[in-house]
Amino acid sequence: MLRTHTCGELRLDHTDQEVTLAGWVQRVRNKGGLIWVDLRDRYGITQLIFEEESSEKELLEKAAELGREFVVQASGKVIERTSKNDKIPTGSIEIKVSKLEVLNAAKVPPFIIEDETDGGEELRMKYRYLDLRRNVVREKLQLRHKMMQETRKYMDAQHFMEVETPVLIKSTPEGARDFVVPSRVNPGEFYALPQSPQTFKQLLMVSGFDRYFQIVKCFRDEDLRADRQPEFTQIDCEMAFVEQEDILSTFEGLTKHLFANVKGVELEEVQRMTFADAMKYYGNDKPDLRFDMKFVELNALAQGKGFGIFDSAELVVGICAKGAAEYTRKQLDALTEWVKRPQIGAKGMVYAKFNEDGTIKSTVDKFYTQEDLQAWANEFGAEPGDLMLILSGDTATVRKQLSELRLKMGEDLGLRDRNVFKPLWVVDFPLLEWDEETKRYHAMHHPFTSPKTEDIPLLDSDPGAVRANAYDLVINGVEIGGGSIRIHDRATQQLMFKHLGFTEEEAQKQFGFLMEAFEYGAPPHGGIAFGFDRLCAIFGGSDSIRDYIAFPKNNSGRDVMIDSPSTIADEQLKELSILVNLKK
Amino acid sequence: MLRTHTCGELRLDHTDQEVTLAGWVQRVRNKGGLIWVDLRDRYGITQLIFEEESSEKELLEKAAELGREFVVQASGKVIERTSKNDKIPTGSIEIKVSKLEVLNAAKVPPFIIEDETDGGEELRMKYRYLDLRRNVVREKLQLRHKMMQETRKYMDAQHFMEVETPVLIKSTPEGARDFVVPSRVNPGEFYALPQSPQTFKQLLMVSGFDRYFQIVKCFRDEDLRADRQPEFTQIDCEMAFVEQEDILSTFEGLTKHLFANVKGVELEEVQRMTFADAMKYYGNDKPDLRFDMKFVELNALAQGKGFGIFDSAELVVGICAKGAAEYTRKQLDALTEWVKRPQIGAKGMVYAKFNEDGTIKSTVDKFYTQEDLQAWANEFGAEPGDLMLILSGDTATVRKQLSELRLKMGEDLGLRDRNVFKPLWVVDFPLLEWDEETKRYHAMHHPFTSPKTEDIPLLDSDPGAVRANAYDLVINGVEIGGGSIRIHDRATQQLMFKHLGFTEEEAQKQFGFLMEAFEYGAPPHGGIAFGFDRLCAIFGGSDSIRDYIAFPKNNSGRDVMIDSPSTIADEQLKELSILVNLKK
Repeated sequence: MLRTHTCGELRLDHTDQEVTLAGWVQRVRNKGGLIWVDLRDRYGITQLIFEEESSEKELLEKAAELGREFVVQASGKVIERTSKNDKIPTGSIEIKVSKLEVLNAAKVPPFIIEDETDGGEELRMKYRYLDLRRNVVREKLQLRHKMMQETRKYMDAQHFMEVETPVLIKSTPEGARDFVVPSRVNPGEFYALPQSPQTFKQLLMVSGFDRYFQIVKCFRDEDLRADRQPEFTQIDCEMAFVEQEDILSTFEGLTKHLFANVKGVELEEVQRMTFADAMKYYGNDKPDLRFDMKFVELNALAQGKGFGIFDSAELVVGICAKGAAEYTRKQLDALTEWVKRPQIGAKGMVYAKFNEDGTIKSTVDKFYTQEDLQAWANEFGAEPGDLMLILSGDTATVRKQLSELRLKMGEDLGLRDRNVFKPLWVVDFPLLEWDEETKRYHAMHHPFTSPKTEDIPLLDSDPGAVRANAYDLVINGVEIGGGSIRIHDRATQQLMFKHLGFTEEEAQKQFGFLMEAFEYGAPPHGGIAFGFDRLCAIFGGSDSIRDYIAFPKNNSGRDVMIDSPSTIADEQLKELSILVNLKK
Repeated sequence: MLRTHTCGELRLDHTDQEVTLAGWVQRVRNKGGLIWVDLRDRYGITQLIFEEESSEKELLEKAAELGREFVVQASGKVIERTSKNDKIPTGSIEIKVSKLEVLNAAKVPPFIIEDETDGGEELRMKYRYLDLRRNVVREKLQLRHKMMQETRKYMDAQHFMEVETPVLIKSTPEGARDFVVPSRVNPGEFYALPQSPQTFKQLLMVSGFDRYFQIVKCFRDEDLRADRQPEFTQIDCEMAFVEQEDILSTFEGLTKHLFANVKGVELEEVQRMTFADAMKYYGNDKPDLRFDMKFVELNALAQGKGFGIFDSAELVVGICAKGAAEYTRKQLDALTEWVKRPQIGAKGMVYAKFNEDGTIKSTVDKFYTQEDLQAWANEFGAEPGDLMLILSGDTATVRKQLSELRLKMGEDLGLRDRNVFKPLWVVDFPLLEWDEETKRYHAMHHPFTSPKTEDIPLLDSDPGAVRANAYDLVINGVEIGGGSIRIHDRATQQLMFKHLGFTEEEAQKQFGFLMEAFEYGAPPHGGIAFGFDRLCAIFGGSDSIRDYIAFPKNNSGRDVMIDSPSTIADEQLKELSILVNLKK
């Protein structure tokens, strides 16, 4: 090794030892014949000292020429510092250097390698390898490492087998967002990269593997948003001979294990909520439960009093913001403008302030008496000092709008603490979802999700009402994982494909192998997949999954560091039997 | 859960407990009013019993109708068996079933699901999910699981950070065997799948990650041989501030850890050998050291005695097969025919039997006296009872031929025991390799490998003689891993690209980001990658890596189970801005 110790290792105990360290020059100070160098590596920072009197001239000159980010190897004796730095673990000692070697010089980096940097996002992406040198960035990847190890430790202890499923699989017309890979050996044919290992993990259950998991890259070629990446990582799991309850308790166990062992947080029982309740009370299938502020429906109380907007609405629904009655008129106007922004799209907002004196002042006093408003307040459980905010309109739309408003109020009132974690199972998702564009039903989760047995008769009469054995794990308003109990017999799977608009031939061509597998003794099974990038972000207290990926791509799916994707040689295209066709 | 216990769990201790098991019907026996069912899951087999007298008629009928591979749930009482089966851990008990539910019926499987099956390779590949049900097959994947967990345990304890590098990277003209992926968002441009995460792991060293590892899928689009797969898995590692010795000792540690914890084998010190010695003494850069049979060069003793074939040869070299003097004439003729096969290509073979009576009988007695032959025997260290086998010709060719012959003799004499493990570091590989076809030098390892400092002056005068800081781990004649100390400065890297025939522009276009990274403070670093599939095969005592891959592809790169690769829709091609062009 080019070092005897790391830069985070030496303490007073090591005093008088001869050591060799290697690392990067973080800072050089030169004062009154003394030169101090902060030497940095992944493990910490150690101070080197060069003294004019006792060091050789050549050594001093070498030290004086060191620049930021030079890579050096320094040998010398550990000595006690006269002025200690108790902010770093090595702050009690320094190295009196007797030998210095520059292992590699460094150009001045394009941005400052410190926790606070002057580099913009684009520059830091281009020089990602320098951005990764910053402690705050590297620590995010260290968290990710720890999450991976702890995940595997738990899964292994629970007898899950880690199995690698193929990356080169088969494209399906359903997979409109598949990345494809031309095969040189099989001209004109293509592999696809998996959007998830779904069918393979189900086959492993048919194989009797009983419990499977994998931390696995998945791929989706879609227009990218800030929190999406074309390649992303899942904790992918499947279990045989289970019911929904078994999956929920097993993965509640994983969640608790991770919080305890990675964050030192003892999680309370994970709450449960049906999809229907989540929509009714939070307007959203991933409610943030760090704060209450439940939806309260006011149709019975607010309609029929002559206020046309409410009277003509399908739903009148509001939230009560505790202690927000002190909002000024200006703040309330801003809030009204906020809900009217195109992203939210409300036509307007009604509010009612429950004043400290017990009176209620609303924007619709013309239509409602104090008694009416007091009845609202009772319904909200509002107390003096609270602010009631009410929207109305079409049920689906108004719930979505109020959900956004609720989150904003939570944010504004400081109720969304990054150090508080409120996990929640949302259960009983609908099996199917109507798509206005294609005028047909789509599988809300995926076509392999089983309907609740008691709802199967509804498949023909009221498909939208059929509930699935499907569940999501939500933490702090973010969907972290989702899964279902699967269909495990051919007849039900065929029925499902039929309801999803597949012809028998299409279903056979694409998923024939899976349906055939179901005929050879498939056990009841189910599973779940967690978005690992997002899970890391939640643990790290960040909104951006990109921070938790070593080499992320930008919003156009480009890696600007290596300049990819890029054109390829004609010779290579010819070998692959394809042509580029830029005409649309 | 649909069960209270697994099928491998119950013992005499559980007698009289009411239990519920679930699994697959392995076998049904029906005799004298009794029905026995062997119920199987991943964990074992448990015997169910149905008695005519005490069971309800309906239950008995249900049991009688069970077929092989039916999936059932059975509840009943654990009872002691009258005739115990001490071959299985549950053999002392059986379940007197009171309730039976068929969870799923099964068609008769296309081959027998037992350790010995009647299914051919192709059929088993098509129904891989059934083949995986066989214990002998599933156990291979269980070994792989264990290898993965133990690898990570060791690496984590050694402070290696597991970092996921991108799968969608950049194609380079060097990467003639890259799989490419058209980008929908960036029309006309392509990603490539990594043949290895080489440049990313080097960048992580520039980032100061210090120690990196990953168990990672890599991809190579090449004509497939029996032991190659288009997607394969590597244990990929890199360390900063190290010299070759540090890498060898760290990964000798990993190797020992795996053997101790997965196989229960305490490995002795890993031997070391230079590439030059490996070639000289074993004709091969991956010698199988489970047996000795070193090459002995005979030029000095065998030339100039009038035997033209030897006299005109560049190299006369042989091996001594201990105790093989008893080979019959017929066996020796067969051996001669074997080396003359086109795959080996020797023109002929000379042998000399050291008889028990002390005489030596050779095929070239016409040219050599007993004294001459005795001198050979001395050189070989041969004793009465041994057989000397000698080939001659061009050095490179004859070494290759004799290497094959040595392995065959080792096999024939039973010296290649699958339960003996002889790991070896081969070091000091040549940096460059002359390619007759392209008439230029190629990097033997890859272009990022550093030359030995003392050999750099030879780069211009005698490039083929330059040795690299490169090493391979070989176990039992199989290359398991390889790596090198890398170049970490721009000037040397540019020099290397020049010697490999890159123009400055090409080098800049393809690896500019890496060379630029070297200018911002790159530490000395090096690493290694292990072929994980092959490592598993070695541990499992198998020659085929395919057995250790859950869903392997065949020799044409096809997954015959899911029928991939396949054609894709014109609509999809259009979206991706490509056309299929089958004209060559």
